[in-house]
Amino acid sequence: MKALVYHGPGKKTWEDVPNPKIEAPSDAIVRVDTTTICGTDLHILKGDVPAVTDGRILGHEGVGTITEVGSAVKSLQVGDRVIISCVTSCGSCAYCRQQLPSHCLDPEGASGIGWIFGHLIDGTQAEFVRVPYADNSLHKLLDSVSDEAGIMLSDILPTGFEIGVRNGDVQPGDVVAVVGAGPVGLSVIMTAGLYGASRIIAIDLDDNRLEIARSVGATDLVNSGSDDWHAQVMDMTDGLGVDVAIEAVGIPTTFDICTSLIRPGGTVANVGVHGESVELALQDLWIKDVTITTGLVSATTTPMLLRLVAQGRLSPEQFVTHRFKMDQMIEAYDTFSRAAETKAMKVAISR
Amino acid sequence: MKALVYHGPGKKTWEDVPNPKIEAPSDAIVRVDTTTICGTDLHILKGDVPAVTDGRILGHEGVGTITEVGSAVKSLQVGDRVIISCVTSCGSCAYCRQQLPSHCLDPEGASGIGWIFGHLIDGTQAEFVRVPYADNSLHKLLDSVSDEAGIMLSDILPTGFEIGVRNGDVQPGDVVAVVGAGPVGLSVIMTAGLYGASRIIAIDLDDNRLEIARSVGATDLVNSGSDDWHAQVMDMTDGLGVDVAIEAVGIPTTFDICTSLIRPGGTVANVGVHGESVELALQDLWIKDVTITTGLVSATTTPMLLRLVAQGRLSPEQFVTHRFKMDQMIEAYDTFSRAAETKAMKVAISR
Amino acid sequence: MKALVYHGPGKKTWEDVPNPKIEAPSDAIVRVDTTTICGTDLHILKGDVPAVTDGRILGHEGVGTITEVGSAVKSLQVGDRVIISCVTSCGSCAYCRQQLPSHCLDPEGASGIGWIFGHLIDGTQAEFVRVPYADNSLHKLLDSVSDEAGIMLSDILPTGFEIGVRNGDVQPGDVVAVVGAGPVGLSVIMTAGLYGASRIIAIDLDDNRLEIARSVGATDLVNSGSDDWHAQVMDMTDGLGVDVAIEAVGIPTTFDICTSLIRPGGTVANVGVHGESVELALQDLWIKDVTITTGLVSATTTPMLLRLVAQGRLSPEQFVTHRFKMDQMIEAYDTFSRAAETKAMKVAISR
Amino acid sequence: MKALVYHGPGKKTWEDVPNPKIEAPSDAIVRVDTTTICGTDLHILKGDVPAVTDGRILGHEGVGTITEVGSAVKSLQVGDRVIISCVTSCGSCAYCRQQLPSHCLDPEGASGIGWIFGHLIDGTQAEFVRVPYADNSLHKLLDSVSDEAGIMLSDILPTGFEIGVRNGDVQPGDVVAVVGAGPVGLSVIMTAGLYGASRIIAIDLDDNRLEIARSVGATDLVNSGSDDWHAQVMDMTDGLGVDVAIEAVGIPTTFDICTSLIRPGGTVANVGVHGESVELALQDLWIKDVTITTGLVSATTTPMLLRLVAQGRLSPEQFVTHRFKMDQMIEAYDTFSRAAETKAMKVAISR
Repeated sequence: MKALVYHGPGKKTWEDVPNPKIEAPSDAIVRVDTTTICGTDLHILKGDVPAVTDGRILGHEGVGTITEVGSAVKSLQVGDRVIISCVTSCGSCAYCRQQLPSHCLDPEGASGIGWIFGHLIDGTQAEFVRVPYADNSLHKLLDSVSDEAGIMLSDILPTGFEIGVRNGDVQPGDVVAVVGAGPVGLSVIMTAGLYGASRIIAIDLDDNRLEIARSVGATDLVNSGSDDWHAQVMDMTDGLGVDVAIEAVGIPTTFDICTSLIRPGGTVANVGVHGESVELALQDLWIKDVTITTGLVSATTTPMLLRLVAQGRLSPEQFVTHRFKMDQMIEAYDTFSRAAETKAMKVAISR
Repeated sequence: MKALVYHGPGKKTWEDVPNPKIEAPSDAIVRVDTTTICGTDLHILKGDVPAVTDGRILGHEGVGTITEVGSAVKSLQVGDRVIISCVTSCGSCAYCRQQLPSHCLDPEGASGIGWIFGHLIDGTQAEFVRVPYADNSLHKLLDSVSDEAGIMLSDILPTGFEIGVRNGDVQPGDVVAVVGAGPVGLSVIMTAGLYGASRIIAIDLDDNRLEIARSVGATDLVNSGSDDWHAQVMDMTDGLGVDVAIEAVGIPTTFDICTSLIRPGGTVANVGVHGESVELALQDLWIKDVTITTGLVSATTTPMLLRLVAQGRLSPEQFVTHRFKMDQMIEAYDTFSRAAETKAMKVAISR
Repeated sequence: MKALVYHGPGKKTWEDVPNPKIEAPSDAIVRVDTTTICGTDLHILKGDVPAVTDGRILGHEGVGTITEVGSAVKSLQVGDRVIISCVTSCGSCAYCRQQLPSHCLDPEGASGIGWIFGHLIDGTQAEFVRVPYADNSLHKLLDSVSDEAGIMLSDILPTGFEIGVRNGDVQPGDVVAVVGAGPVGLSVIMTAGLYGASRIIAIDLDDNRLEIARSVGATDLVNSGSDDWHAQVMDMTDGLGVDVAIEAVGIPTTFDICTSLIRPGGTVANVGVHGESVELALQDLWIKDVTITTGLVSATTTPMLLRLVAQGRLSPEQFVTHRFKMDQMIEAYDTFSRAAETKAMKVAISR
Repeated sequence: MKALVYHGPGKKTWEDVPNPKIEAPSDAIVRVDTTTICGTDLHILKGDVPAVTDGRILGHEGVGTITEVGSAVKSLQVGDRVIISCVTSCGSCAYCRQQLPSHCLDPEGASGIGWIFGHLIDGTQAEFVRVPYADNSLHKLLDSVSDEAGIMLSDILPTGFEIGVRNGDVQPGDVVAVVGAGPVGLSVIMTAGLYGASRIIAIDLDDNRLEIARSVGATDLVNSGSDDWHAQVMDMTDGLGVDVAIEAVGIPTTFDICTSLIRPGGTVANVGVHGESVELALQDLWIKDVTITTGLVSATTTPMLLRLVAQGRLSPEQFVTHRFKMDQMIEAYDTFSRAAETKAMKVAISR
């Protein structure tokens, strides 16, 4: 089959590789119908994730069709159309049992991390993929849900909801600031209404992205390049700050924006992937009764979000701006990696 | 009357001042029977808290007897023996109504902070003190509870419990690390058992303090000056880190100890008062599903803790190492400020 | 002034009575601009609430204008337009401090119940009313909020939200059944979306009320007089039952409907006022991991709901079906008490 | 092998049956080292549980040694000493993923209930037992934990903790009443301290059981046969009732005791297995803001409780009053079924 293979920093090819095979009784093989590219894939290609080694097939998002199941797989059959969750869950370890498979202690892999596709095992940017613990890691897709909606449920929609909205403890009536209107920020914005946020303030440097934010649920837009962004946001509150600030970029500046906007008793939920440390102003914050959270998605809410997508209450297929065929994989990467220029949000890459 | 008056950085005197008077119908006047000194008072004397101005009577902890009540005071009478809470609560503002009087928006003071004694109004290191919102800010003391136990309920025991144990979300069976075995750290240690912690690891540089920690409930002691403190703590867990790490010092090093020990999914509760920012290693922590909390005590748990003290289940009078009369106030400050040398933990200063 | 006075079972008059006066420093006097009638008032008139005695002015809902404040009132002034909360909160007792003023232990009244208007003290169906603990029991009204929206915030909207939706622990994606589409049932339906319910099933015997339910947010309607109401609801779930069932009538039949529809792990929230016991099928329910809750509104969410009303996100003024002037009070009672016939939902009675 | 086989109401024999075999790749076979008898087994023998049919091996508690594992079992090996959990969890269904395997929807069994041993499949009162989903349903036992402590972790200790203490939402300082001092009631009493209960009041008709209750953690004893049991309990509170009342018998009278003792805002947690309905006095309770919970153990806390047992902080082996060898199984049943007379609490039946 064909697959997108990593060959060290800066090097990737769309090349022939052997088809995957069932290795454990709980495995399934899935034919990938649609996949996509994540910002994390670009980090890997820069060499930022040393655990990814030469020869690894990338990608951790996808919708596909089951072509083979192991002898211990119970709830799935050949022919089932499924979402491939970005997080693999053994279902038995202490972390899986406490609904935190993001830190799955899989006795085989002993990795301590549930994100293994395109990282510790071969991923979804390929014609076929082997899925361990298939009963826990695949979600049957209803006919009414498109592939393009489905691939958003592999990673970014549950990430935005779990690590942004739910960790942020959004409550009815809350004023929520979302810093960063990229794909994950949009996922936060789209799902913040599920807990009754009264205002959802999108903050970004790019007016194009802010307008997209409005179309998926932001009630207010603030360009953080403006001189008075801080005052603008404060004016949208009672003057004490926002109830919840959600970081969806991953750099010190945007984290600082969050801590500068938070009211006493509020929560800062970090969603962004950070490459360096930040300075935390504990001299100001120690007294403010704030909570700061971090996290990798556990994707435990994927079934619930899928139901809401099937009902038409959430429409994450809106995030798709560009479409490609699988043999245009390299072109898809090129478009996605030049997002500022191409205005790419999410790309859909299909058979 | 006599009182300990602040006269700018480094200057304090035990001097004659006018007696306090009822100013609002919800005020009470309390004769101070026993007071104590807090680390915060030392910070104020260094000039670190600019809101405290020349002429202010210091102190925010005390047990006393009511000598006068305003016309709107309902639940208290002259002669009642009471704990003076370090936090004053108007009982009506948005923060008081959400059980967070640490950020009381008192319409008179408009301060946004519930800690006002010895800060924004005159405090408890005096023969008498005016207590605003007496119904909310005083707690009747049972005969069976000594003054020395009572003064620990003004501030440090609820601080340790609310900002350490409860913010840390200690759960039955948890392994808890408490960094710093000063008065507040001991309060954390003494109350961590209320949520069934299985191990309470006291971490400090001072072996004397560690031994005191053991006597109030620590199950394990680690001297953080040892080369292998990190490995020692890890060996007390399943190798993944502690469930909860509680910072009770207030400097970058001790905060770092906490974040270095925390397991995926765990909580770091900051109790210490910080004077500078810390470096937060988000490059490591973003993926770890950790929660970091800060806070100023709201003292909403004082009545519950008082019942447990009255039952003999908590014995915070153990924290008192030195005793003085009020006219030895300056000597008491001297002893408390040289704690390393004098081995002072809490000092009790009585009529 | 004029007021609606109870004179024993079945007897009420709109008569002259003395104007109320400030009795305690924390009191305010409010001129009632708009009031309404609650089903509870009808219960009182039947003699079902023996605590209400001859001579009592009825009514616990209202919007008005402050005409006088006591010396301890801090946050309110003469001329302020306010919502009168149905629950009076001393702000200091153990229950008020734990956000449960529905059981306020007011040291004066020692009643153990926060609902005192038109019950233990004179109420709001009058030209003026004395409001104890005004700082805690009145909410300033924004100009943008009409009296008719405001009176829904005295009682029924917070009742539906707190005792129905919040006690029911509605979570994003949940299927919620609301049994009873009267004023409180509609309040439940209108606010269930604040926690992201995916389906809100209104259940009632009256098709007219069901249609109103749809207009305020119900996604599905079931007439419980149909033979297959149970199967109809089950078909709207995965076959295991609803996540949350909310009882908003107050009779054994409707409570039974709730327990018969609940899925394993679900919650039954009782909002209805019951006059007799119900049979609880513990032989079936003991194993089902269900939670059953009851409650009287504490109205702690009134400020939050008011903000959402001011934003236009909630429109409870839709519940008003009939309008009267105060001197038509008796006629208003007549219309409201024959609701099946008059199709009255809520009546607005204004100066 | 030998096993205790049910042959219809009133009939049981200790007889020869075929050894169990691996049926699915996730199965294990365990040699039973120690088992016990549960009140539920007596119910089954009376014919109260029609799902149990002629030929079924009874028993759902046990400690044993693994003799064989299926090909998909990852975390366990032949020779491991294990606790057999009374609840079997597929680890993949919606209920297992939400930490409620008591309602496991196992795609094979489609039973909707996690308790299958000695109910829907053969149980543990046998020399060997087949354990489905072994990775999720067995817990490795430390050498330091005896078989007699271990069998309490199969069912009753987690039942008391999860369905009593945790559902009851016991908080530090709470006054907790436990109605029924049988094995499960004792488990509640032993674990109520894990959330800092200030008073644990054991209520029973049998003074012998009350004394045992004291030895495992009850602070107060009340014989419910006394005339003034209600007043006795109220005197142990502030007069408003207990914070938490836990029913551990399963008859209407004891459930009524719980609802009669509960304070406004309190929780009644039902643990008892009920055979008939109870009358719930909603005419009194609707206004009291109470929560009533029910449940079957999910045994998700077994690993945590096991750690505390290994530490010596919980000593459930104290519940064992009588010991038998397996070939005395019928005699063990006889002793256990005449508990009032024999004073049997739990019996240990070993190889």
